[in-house]
Amino acid sequence: MKPDIQIVEVGMRDGLQNEKQILDLQTKKEFADRLISAGVQRIEVGAFVHPKWVPAMAGSQELIQSVQKKYQQALDKKKLFLSALVPNEKGMMDAVESGIREVAIFASSTEAFSQRNINCSIEESFQRFLPVMKLAKKHKLKVRGYLSTCFGCPFEGQVDPDQVVSLTERMLKLGVYQVSIGDTIGVAQPHQVQILLKKIKRKVGLEKIACHFHDTRGMAVANALVSYQLGVRTFDSSLGGLGGCPYAPAATGNVATEDLVYMFQGMGLKTGIDLNGLFQLNHWLGEKIGRTLPSRLGQAPCLPYLVL
Amino acid sequence: MKPDIQIVEVGMRDGLQNEKQILDLQTKKEFADRLISAGVQRIEVGAFVHPKWVPAMAGSQELIQSVQKKYQQALDKKKLFLSALVPNEKGMMDAVESGIREVAIFASSTEAFSQRNINCSIEESFQRFLPVMKLAKKHKLKVRGYLSTCFGCPFEGQVDPDQVVSLTERMLKLGVYQVSIGDTIGVAQPHQVQILLKKIKRKVGLEKIACHFHDTRGMAVANALVSYQLGVRTFDSSLGGLGGCPYAPAATGNVATEDLVYMFQGMGLKTGIDLNGLFQLNHWLGEKIGRTLPSRLGQAPCLPYLVL
Repeated sequence: MKPDIQIVEVGMRDGLQNEKQILDLQTKKEFADRLISAGVQRIEVGAFVHPKWVPAMAGSQELIQSVQKKYQQALDKKKLFLSALVPNEKGMMDAVESGIREVAIFASSTEAFSQRNINCSIEESFQRFLPVMKLAKKHKLKVRGYLSTCFGCPFEGQVDPDQVVSLTERMLKLGVYQVSIGDTIGVAQPHQVQILLKKIKRKVGLEKIACHFHDTRGMAVANALVSYQLGVRTFDSSLGGLGGCPYAPAATGNVATEDLVYMFQGMGLKTGIDLNGLFQLNHWLGEKIGRTLPSRLGQAPCLPYLVL
Repeated sequence: MKPDIQIVEVGMRDGLQNEKQILDLQTKKEFADRLISAGVQRIEVGAFVHPKWVPAMAGSQELIQSVQKKYQQALDKKKLFLSALVPNEKGMMDAVESGIREVAIFASSTEAFSQRNINCSIEESFQRFLPVMKLAKKHKLKVRGYLSTCFGCPFEGQVDPDQVVSLTERMLKLGVYQVSIGDTIGVAQPHQVQILLKKIKRKVGLEKIACHFHDTRGMAVANALVSYQLGVRTFDSSLGGLGGCPYAPAATGNVATEDLVYMFQGMGLKTGIDLNGLFQLNHWLGEKIGRTLPSRLGQAPCLPYLVL
């Protein structure tokens, strides 16, 4: 049964890479197990990046191989989809070696963020995608694209929606099956989201668009709502709202998976995910991370009548 | 210049009455000063309840008289509106004595919550309103009505929207100028809000309706958004998301004033409120209350380019 809303759980990657507390391999495996038990079908498990850059992603190779082996059957039946982030050709070769069936590439919407984040221009980042896409084609891996800082950039300020539309188009032309539009620093308000998505809709439609909101300023759930109203059906989120922002230690991370599921289930939409399972997982993960996770729902009392 | 969105700041009442830390009179006065400086035009300053029941509201008489005296001119020019909660005739007599020009009365949408909260049935609470309304008429006070537990009740579960519609109608017939529809325990999702508001709209319109959301489960901003989309223009909120829930010490309180202002200003709507002022007030208040206030925006970094 295909869910009405596709949730892409990015807590194991976008979430964990922004947490101070680094989880060991065993805990990460258990995190994956618990997500899968709760019904989460799409998980970005790790990243093939240099551990010197992103220490939290060390051991992604081993983690991915272990999770894949354990859930081979679900993967074969397309009941489970695992992916990993790859920054370049080297990462892509590691991804191929790991046996993973999907990878994600990423580019920034602003030059300044591109330079600071991955030390190259936007143009250069698209050049780097070419050998990655070639390898993906050769080894039959699906590729997803992330566009970051689509609404605001900490260095350049508000972002021109036309620039984002044009980069979205360019990514799709590369052959990615989906582009995830990211509010990396969590500044977008619903109206801004509407403006950008309407432009994207006119140019390329929304069938291949996902939204990736951060809840830094409390707008993420509302932003997801207007995106849904316009036609977006895939959303990235992190269990518990894991993560944060390198520019602000106290800031909230990705929108919480449980918050999105709560809203969408309230609309009678199927996500395939068991909210009670997420609720329990939130508390488990909070203990492992060593702090109360930011999700409002995760901290709320589970009233007797609430059938989550 | 009339704002496009009316924000009713309830932090001094609904917020503070649910905080452990009790503020002294001087701090409350400064809270009011700072709200008014930031451009907040409608403030529920206190409650005429017995201090044994609600210790945080002790001294409301003195507070109200002091704030009114200081802002006499703004009150006369209708640039500022102050109100106080009154539970019964006794409270109403105190309100009249204080010289305040507006009061708020409240009823529950469910029998069980009514009994536990104010120790009487819904019918009895409406009987208590009669002498209150009589005094209001005599002394020319405006009366606002609150309906609590409009979406969910901790004792009865999900609430029948028709019951809420009928109580809304009944309150309006009493002569209140506005009914504030409250999600007291913060369980509503946007879809549930749409269902109820559409029913209310059909029956009595939305011109006299305000929405009062709690962010206990992270839905409040999205709930405000769908309410706005349907036509609601008045929203209750607390600076910083002050408050909580007597049933859950860790729970979030009212939706944060700054979060709503951020969203509505993003739509190009005028609230009359200076977001930078709220941001500074958030940090001042957090220190006085002794904890980081729950508003996401209040904890977010104020990026150089963000003209709040």
